[in-house]
Amino acid sequence: MTSDDFRAAAHTAADLAADHLAGLAAGPVWQPMDDAARRTLLDAPLPAAGRPLDELLASVGRDVLPYPMGNGHPRFFGWVNSAPAPAGVLATLAAAAMNPSSAGGDHADVHLERAVVRWIAELVGFPHPPGGGLLTSGTSMATIVCLAAARNRAARAAGWDVREDGLAGMPPLVGYVTGETHSCVRKAAELLGLGSKHLRAVAAGPDGRLDPAALRAAIARDRAAGLLPFLVVASAGTVGTGAVDAFDPIADLCAEERLWLHVDGAYGAFGVLDPEIAHRYAGLARADSLALDPHKWLGVPVDCGCALVRDPAELRAAFSLVPSYLRDEAAGELGWFSEYGTEQTRPFRALKVWATIAHRGRDGLAADIARTTALARRLGELVTADPELELLAEVQTSIVAFRLRPADPTGRTDEAEEAALDALNRDIPAAVQRRGRAFLTGARLDGREILRACLLNPATTEEDLEVLLAEVKAAGCEHTG
Amino acid sequence: MTSDDFRAAAHTAADLAADHLAGLAAGPVWQPMDDAARRTLLDAPLPAAGRPLDELLASVGRDVLPYPMGNGHPRFFGWVNSAPAPAGVLATLAAAAMNPSSAGGDHADVHLERAVVRWIAELVGFPHPPGGGLLTSGTSMATIVCLAAARNRAARAAGWDVREDGLAGMPPLVGYVTGETHSCVRKAAELLGLGSKHLRAVAAGPDGRLDPAALRAAIARDRAAGLLPFLVVASAGTVGTGAVDAFDPIADLCAEERLWLHVDGAYGAFGVLDPEIAHRYAGLARADSLALDPHKWLGVPVDCGCALVRDPAELRAAFSLVPSYLRDEAAGELGWFSEYGTEQTRPFRALKVWATIAHRGRDGLAADIARTTALARRLGELVTADPELELLAEVQTSIVAFRLRPADPTGRTDEAEEAALDALNRDIPAAVQRRGRAFLTGARLDGREILRACLLNPATTEEDLEVLLAEVKAAGCEHTG
Ligand SMILES: Cc1ncc(COP(=O)(O)O)c(C=O)c1O
Ligand SMILES: Cc1ncc(COP(=O)(O)O)c(C=O)c1O
Repeated sequence: MTSDDFRAAAHTAADLAADHLAGLAAGPVWQPMDDAARRTLLDAPLPAAGRPLDELLASVGRDVLPYPMGNGHPRFFGWVNSAPAPAGVLATLAAAAMNPSSAGGDHADVHLERAVVRWIAELVGFPHPPGGGLLTSGTSMATIVCLAAARNRAARAAGWDVREDGLAGMPPLVGYVTGETHSCVRKAAELLGLGSKHLRAVAAGPDGRLDPAALRAAIARDRAAGLLPFLVVASAGTVGTGAVDAFDPIADLCAEERLWLHVDGAYGAFGVLDPEIAHRYAGLARADSLALDPHKWLGVPVDCGCALVRDPAELRAAFSLVPSYLRDEAAGELGWFSEYGTEQTRPFRALKVWATIAHRGRDGLAADIARTTALARRLGELVTADPELELLAEVQTSIVAFRLRPADPTGRTDEAEEAALDALNRDIPAAVQRRGRAFLTGARLDGREILRACLLNPATTEEDLEVLLAEVKAAGCEHTG
Repeated sequence: MTSDDFRAAAHTAADLAADHLAGLAAGPVWQPMDDAARRTLLDAPLPAAGRPLDELLASVGRDVLPYPMGNGHPRFFGWVNSAPAPAGVLATLAAAAMNPSSAGGDHADVHLERAVVRWIAELVGFPHPPGGGLLTSGTSMATIVCLAAARNRAARAAGWDVREDGLAGMPPLVGYVTGETHSCVRKAAELLGLGSKHLRAVAAGPDGRLDPAALRAAIARDRAAGLLPFLVVASAGTVGTGAVDAFDPIADLCAEERLWLHVDGAYGAFGVLDPEIAHRYAGLARADSLALDPHKWLGVPVDCGCALVRDPAELRAAFSLVPSYLRDEAAGELGWFSEYGTEQTRPFRALKVWATIAHRGRDGLAADIARTTALARRLGELVTADPELELLAEVQTSIVAFRLRPADPTGRTDEAEEAALDALNRDIPAAVQRRGRAFLTGARLDGREILRACLLNPATTEEDLEVLLAEVKAAGCEHTG
């Protein structure tokens, strides 16, 4: 392959990407793959001989690009998956051509990562001491990184060196979450050897926010039982309803009790950029660590999460294998990124973050985010105004939790009606998805099956919201019909 | 921004990438950044206003691409970082434009990941039951994934549910490694709460391979002390010398003792594709898990690691949060990838793997790998033939461990000479790097400071090897001069 071949193929790839993005909105949001298309991918034999680049790109255009997840479409409201920011998409090409490992060293990618981690901290108003964060593959990994630091600090305070000695023999460390805490926290606690039974789900108030009084009581109970409370996880936007915890009273309590306060801002932290809802985030900056996802609300192409910490030394103490007497020599005071997290070879995620933020600027991002929160409030109004729909939580950020609740002429008991509503709403997401005109997902909230729509795409219109609700009702008719 | 703007920018990005790759070999391998260039990146202020795509790409061309890590260059011999495979580079653009989450579901990326994980297993001759692996950000993460499964299985056998109960209260689990085992294993053991003191470095033989007799003795000692041996980590290519452990006797012992055999094939597993050295890998397929890095010898752009396991149920048991009664309904028998590892949102790594393998084919990859092992053996010969250089380990794969050893006219004691050689060789890598004509890194081997050159780039020539050795000597003269 000559460099001219590569250049020609790169232009073909550019057109493929441009065609894909330009064509998305006109098609269905998502469709199940037909069996033949699925088999083409699944059963592809390992090839003995190679194929030229142009053939491969033709195959991408024919066999791959027509079968997306749907999140590029303005009527995708599922989970928390955004459309890719165009500047971020383009950056991936240069990043792959350079192909550095951002483990550390003196090359552009490493310095740019330091800058964009600072930008992310500035965007959400989190403190940023030098070295106070790094990019990860997502919030799941950022949570593991932050909770490892929290675990090790707490063990150290109890006279225990977890890295050297492990957890066998220690009294259990206990963390506090809510029923709405994302499952990645449980996964992290399990991976770290803490055990999910040592995560206490503290009661939330009626607004879905963690109740500090209940938290205080739970901590006291555990201390009395000889356990070691060490961690509180609060949410800057729960995945189910977009609820933002009241951070100040929790931070007060954590300071008093010397617990590590971790905030899961995967989905919602960037909401603070919208002046309309910024007040909800008061106290966020007091956390010990914050995990958040540029690959969600900012639209940075997957993967890109970020871990921010108040005390960089805690991260380094948790992960560095460089003995301290060797540290300052070659790598500068901060050392290598690989001393602050789980990854050794690290991809050049910073370039797509840089491009995404630089393309829109702080103001453009804030406007995009404000547009999606406004759309979410509008959707909440449409739901409220509709007698067959029921809004199930205040729209605090850009997630709308609701359900279909057709008039019930049967005069059933409350319980029987609830069971019927659960059955109905449980089936709606898949039916809406199959119909292809909109995409939303379900969740459980307080034991009930609900629908939730997550607004992340500033290209979504009010008309799209109406289509979504019409589709929910149509799916509901399929169910009863 | 219109879709024409995007298309135009995508073509600019295509040329940037093509220019970068075409220009690499003519420039220095690497150079330290001058302070102004570094500051441009490090100190960039968070922008309030956005900038158009063409400006951003101009900035990438001016401020970023000229400062690479060096691994794209044919005279880069450092660590284990490869030049990016062209097809893999192009695939990143389509992957970012689609921007799915490969957590699971019915879209092209998920099915393609199933296929390429199978391809990877077939390439190295590892068993591949359905669901028996997934792509990760690298071997560091793949190791965490595999060792979590190993830990949980061992605890279960001892009547302990680690996920639920944690490790506090359990007897310590003990794992066996060698002095040459990559540090990511220690990092994984620390993260998992096992404690690095419960990793025993078993003696290696003079060939750098784990000694089964020493292993057997260590296991017996630990059992006698009431500890729970559970894991052996063998290497399919150590990072220091490229040594491949003799797997069959280790696998026999693991079977007998019921230990989980994990193989770190990050760097070296794909060496099995070279018929010349394939015999070294006998028994690899008997491991319980294998971690390996398509982003190393295959040249898949960073990041891309892979975890393969003999028993997929063990991975799912370690990571799934989907209760078993819900499993078969929506997601098919295998469920979601996010049930098998640490990541929830998962990037579309499969496309760059697919493109890289499909572009060269199995045979092309095997030829590329055979070329680099031949180059490494040739480098070993050049070192051996040179009275001022000393080869320090058999060239088993494509890593050459050596040192500069000028004739010593001083008649010093052995110890004094060794100390002087250590001082000399410790300084050489940085000096070679600064000179810009070649790039290699150092390591410690049996307490000595050594040089190591890792051959991964089939574009490297024999002349490049001569340049490397000349640069090592020139750097040595700088030291003494
Ligand atoms: C609130 C919340 N926390 C954590 C996560 C996990 O983040 P990731 O998928 O980036 O690992 C998500 C993802 O949906 C989320 O919405
Ligand atoms: C032998 C070996 N194991 C493990 C690793 C870690 O792999 P990664 O950097 O992909 O996390 C490396 C990386 O250099 C390696 O060479």
